[in-house]
Amino acid sequence: MKLGFVGYGAQAQENLIPCCRTLGGIEIAAICDRDEAQRAIASRNYDADIIFDDYQEMIMEADLDAIIVACYPKEHFEVATFAMDHRLPVFVEKPPAPSSLHLEKMIELAGQSGVTTGVGMNFRFASVTRQLRAVSEGQIDCITLRHFCNKPTAPFWNQANLLQSFLYSQSIHSLDFLIDLCGPVRDVAVTANNSTRRILMTVMLRFSSGASASLITSNTSPHFVFDFDAIAMGKRHVSSSSLWQLEVSEVGKVYNQAETKKWTDAWAPSPLDSGFVRSGYAGQMIEFLTAVREQREASISFKSLRETYGCMDKIEESLRADQQVLARRAS
Amino acid sequence: MKLGFVGYGAQAQENLIPCCRTLGGIEIAAICDRDEAQRAIASRNYDADIIFDDYQEMIMEADLDAIIVACYPKEHFEVATFAMDHRLPVFVEKPPAPSSLHLEKMIELAGQSGVTTGVGMNFRFASVTRQLRAVSEGQIDCITLRHFCNKPTAPFWNQANLLQSFLYSQSIHSLDFLIDLCGPVRDVAVTANNSTRRILMTVMLRFSSGASASLITSNTSPHFVFDFDAIAMGKRHVSSSSLWQLEVSEVGKVYNQAETKKWTDAWAPSPLDSGFVRSGYAGQMIEFLTAVREQREASISFKSLRETYGCMDKIEESLRADQQVLARRAS
Amino acid sequence: MKLGFVGYGAQAQENLIPCCRTLGGIEIAAICDRDEAQRAIASRNYDADIIFDDYQEMIMEADLDAIIVACYPKEHFEVATFAMDHRLPVFVEKPPAPSSLHLEKMIELAGQSGVTTGVGMNFRFASVTRQLRAVSEGQIDCITLRHFCNKPTAPFWNQANLLQSFLYSQSIHSLDFLIDLCGPVRDVAVTANNSTRRILMTVMLRFSSGASASLITSNTSPHFVFDFDAIAMGKRHVSSSSLWQLEVSEVGKVYNQAETKKWTDAWAPSPLDSGFVRSGYAGQMIEFLTAVREQREASISFKSLRETYGCMDKIEESLRADQQVLARRAS
Amino acid sequence: MKLGFVGYGAQAQENLIPCCRTLGGIEIAAICDRDEAQRAIASRNYDADIIFDDYQEMIMEADLDAIIVACYPKEHFEVATFAMDHRLPVFVEKPPAPSSLHLEKMIELAGQSGVTTGVGMNFRFASVTRQLRAVSEGQIDCITLRHFCNKPTAPFWNQANLLQSFLYSQSIHSLDFLIDLCGPVRDVAVTANNSTRRILMTVMLRFSSGASASLITSNTSPHFVFDFDAIAMGKRHVSSSSLWQLEVSEVGKVYNQAETKKWTDAWAPSPLDSGFVRSGYAGQMIEFLTAVREQREASISFKSLRETYGCMDKIEESLRADQQVLARRAS
Repeated sequence: MKLGFVGYGAQAQENLIPCCRTLGGIEIAAICDRDEAQRAIASRNYDADIIFDDYQEMIMEADLDAIIVACYPKEHFEVATFAMDHRLPVFVEKPPAPSSLHLEKMIELAGQSGVTTGVGMNFRFASVTRQLRAVSEGQIDCITLRHFCNKPTAPFWNQANLLQSFLYSQSIHSLDFLIDLCGPVRDVAVTANNSTRRILMTVMLRFSSGASASLITSNTSPHFVFDFDAIAMGKRHVSSSSLWQLEVSEVGKVYNQAETKKWTDAWAPSPLDSGFVRSGYAGQMIEFLTAVREQREASISFKSLRETYGCMDKIEESLRADQQVLARRAS
Repeated sequence: MKLGFVGYGAQAQENLIPCCRTLGGIEIAAICDRDEAQRAIASRNYDADIIFDDYQEMIMEADLDAIIVACYPKEHFEVATFAMDHRLPVFVEKPPAPSSLHLEKMIELAGQSGVTTGVGMNFRFASVTRQLRAVSEGQIDCITLRHFCNKPTAPFWNQANLLQSFLYSQSIHSLDFLIDLCGPVRDVAVTANNSTRRILMTVMLRFSSGASASLITSNTSPHFVFDFDAIAMGKRHVSSSSLWQLEVSEVGKVYNQAETKKWTDAWAPSPLDSGFVRSGYAGQMIEFLTAVREQREASISFKSLRETYGCMDKIEESLRADQQVLARRAS
Repeated sequence: MKLGFVGYGAQAQENLIPCCRTLGGIEIAAICDRDEAQRAIASRNYDADIIFDDYQEMIMEADLDAIIVACYPKEHFEVATFAMDHRLPVFVEKPPAPSSLHLEKMIELAGQSGVTTGVGMNFRFASVTRQLRAVSEGQIDCITLRHFCNKPTAPFWNQANLLQSFLYSQSIHSLDFLIDLCGPVRDVAVTANNSTRRILMTVMLRFSSGASASLITSNTSPHFVFDFDAIAMGKRHVSSSSLWQLEVSEVGKVYNQAETKKWTDAWAPSPLDSGFVRSGYAGQMIEFLTAVREQREASISFKSLRETYGCMDKIEESLRADQQVLARRAS
Repeated sequence: MKLGFVGYGAQAQENLIPCCRTLGGIEIAAICDRDEAQRAIASRNYDADIIFDDYQEMIMEADLDAIIVACYPKEHFEVATFAMDHRLPVFVEKPPAPSSLHLEKMIELAGQSGVTTGVGMNFRFASVTRQLRAVSEGQIDCITLRHFCNKPTAPFWNQANLLQSFLYSQSIHSLDFLIDLCGPVRDVAVTANNSTRRILMTVMLRFSSGASASLITSNTSPHFVFDFDAIAMGKRHVSSSSLWQLEVSEVGKVYNQAETKKWTDAWAPSPLDSGFVRSGYAGQMIEFLTAVREQREASISFKSLRETYGCMDKIEESLRADQQVLARRAS
């Protein structure tokens, strides 16, 4: 399968391309970047004749089976639109679109063209997510997620404000993770303590399934944190830290030495665990590429992000008043 | 200092009396229990002449400096009232009162009598709480607490329903912990997924200080869990597990080997850590007994619980509709 | 039961007396310290008429059921000898004797007098030790123990050198822990990298049972470390950290979700775990006091330390050459 | 750089090829396997014209810059010898040779041909190893390593016995890790409790540097364990678990909140840590490929394994008596 990459930045170089390379039957057939400096880096590792400065030219000239796009959100929309117009399967990094409106257009176009689409939602495929899914048997009652990071601390991607930048670069992951596990959202409530440089929010979600979730998130931690606790089936407590450890304890379960208390089932990957499986990058690429091969819709299609975008919209809306105050203060 | 104990159940036998015994200058001068079986247990360890079946008789006859009460909430009210009427310092286990109304009467009486009062809020004094207080320098922005346990699963203490039983036996600790750290509550919101035997709630608190807190709590975990993450000073992330471990990471801080990323300051007690300091039992007793000696109000006075009771009232109120449905279902 | 305490230092004040106080039916009936400053501290908490400056006087005058001794090793010998001569049950802190010769005399005297004796070997009774014993079903193949601490860094207790001070204050615990689990020692080998202020040793033990153990120990760590890994029954791996966590994994065992790999059974005490049970202090005192009541030999009798002393002797012997060099260097 | 792979088994498919693919400028130019089934798997992902059944043919025909070999130890010797004869840089998986004699011949040939050689010693390059090296500043006093796994439980690779199979497949890693950190070995002592199906050994190493190391290793654990504690510079304790966590504590160091006790510096990778850096696979390949480019000897050259083989020889020798007994028993 011949893949073309649009955007040769850090995400492409460190995760997307290496991850695709670990999969068999993949050829890195074309690379495109508008920035000359990035093309210069690419030229150290790739033949000059597969490096492009214009994605349209690349799509027209290289005989590709799919493209993988990792640029800015506005470009994601443009490139995806062009690709779908040319019936070329397209995978875009998050955020796939700069707004819900754009996403809807992309979904519409995907439907019309029948082309396979995908978005880089790796957390859905992380090893601990798979474990949680198996242990909870689809019956999550409540989940609480801590998602901390250290950026953005200023608006970027041409976005209007810090909140939007944070939602589209960070919360899209955590919200999508929760929605992927619990299904359609019935209700969103936000408590925020944001400032011009700081994001600090707690988001409460209620799902149609009856489940509820809380997301505690901020840009104030030096380290990336993605830890959760879930209650499932009214009796199982699943606790996970760093996408590395998972513990399951169950009311009434008899553990080692016939004890029911103080014992837990604990899971951790092998110390030698390598590659992109644990972090979910491998899972997302395999799902997309398999769907391309099978000419079906991927589970990570543009459409699969609709609920997450709706949720981001509601958060923005509910914080609009706060933002206006902040915007005024900043000006 | 001569102490009398009212209620010789598990809490008195396993925590309160052993903890007081580790402190110097304390005499276990009287023990009272209405239940003959409990008195029989007491008689194995204490002289018959200090064992009573009537607390009023005990208070009148034994020459006590203070009493420590660990019974049912309704009795806490009665015994505390009687003790204050007789100007005897009184410490009661949580919950100190069966309702806010009762608590207000106790606060009023404490004010009139000028007697030292105390409530068993050990989490305020746990080692990790002290560490959090020091690290956050009084500037907590946001804190999220997971408090899981396996009881109650049916109403007890003569309380109207499971929710109330859970609030008064479990949430009183977690809410008080948050309020003690963040101050007066401005706003309370609850998302619950309770049933006749299950409690599963997320409580959002906004404080006058601007801080916010979330409490995720349930009776569905086999083990007692009390874990939290706090964001402080807009840059410090404090994470604590099992009242045993605490980690602090700070944006921009230079750690070992001159690195700013992936390192954290981690704290844990000595493996030989014994006694009641870590869990906060020692701290609460020392505060109460010192206040008795100094004839001052203790930081854990009845009055100090007012905010916590107000918060429990708001939770009950906001869930009343749910409860009516559950009550009907159960009948 | 009326107890007399000889030596009112930190160990008595922080562990022995508080721990005994948590047990029922115990009276702190006498306290003795030669040091006036310590007696002054004691007088804040105890009546003057139970405080003594001479242990012989205390033993003769106070009507005691047993004495608990926590002084220097040489005094342990003297006090224990005097107590046994007067047929008074005696518990001494480690080290019970300043040499094997002294210990043998104490064992002989204990045999002649028939009096119950005990030594403060709390690690034998720690919660993780009990768990290890249960999980290994008495069939430990191999155990490796890391025992690090930050003292002594100079000879003390009137002992000849740093090595002896370290063995008698620290290694007595770790060696005894291993011997208590694995039985009589067949062979001892030591690799050391000691200096005048530093102890850094690896001790290999082979037991008559066929089991082997390694002890890695030093005085170069700021924190007290007592971590071990054991292989048992040819298929179980038991790993313990900080006397707080224990993990058991077993070849071929089917865990959660029907998987055999990457899962483990994990144990940890309750966050509210208080008192002296986990650290083993409660277990050692209960064993001694129960043995006194039942007028039998305690499992922690003087005699039970014989193998441990033999082991310390062999270590000293094998390092004698090193020490002579060090002693010469230091002088 | 055009690479040829000899042996298309699990190690090549899961680690070596994916890892090389994550590096830039690498072409998988040829794949060779004697086994038709493996070639069939390869043919799903590679063009038929780069798949070979004979490594000599592959080396002669494909225009390669280096070969990567992952077969049986005896083949490693044959293939490496052939490659060096043809002045082709060669990287072999461990064990590079079936005996010290073979290794010496390979070292000799490498010297004569001047060709770059490499061995897959990934633990030397693991993230925690790099951290340990930095923190210990080259002054390790003592290190203790737990290396547990669940295979081999029967002789393989045509090797004489289980011990040799275990040494050459497992201990080569742990011994090399220790030797790479501490330098030339002065003395080796072994305590073993092996049987026909079980390996359980403790190996004591003394190094010329004065450092000492202990390796506790077995084939009796369901999970792969590679945990160590090191004492460095007479004051630093470095503890590592699962190649994932590292803690450093130092005597006298002032930590958070101005405390010197109970705090530690803790390191862990990002939850999203992907690829082969943490496990050391990336480091080993980069070292070899860079050395090929720079036409120099790699730090993981055949020669660099000499000390490790010498150490394995001494272990075998010291256990020969045991093995003879076991061999007799098994026959």
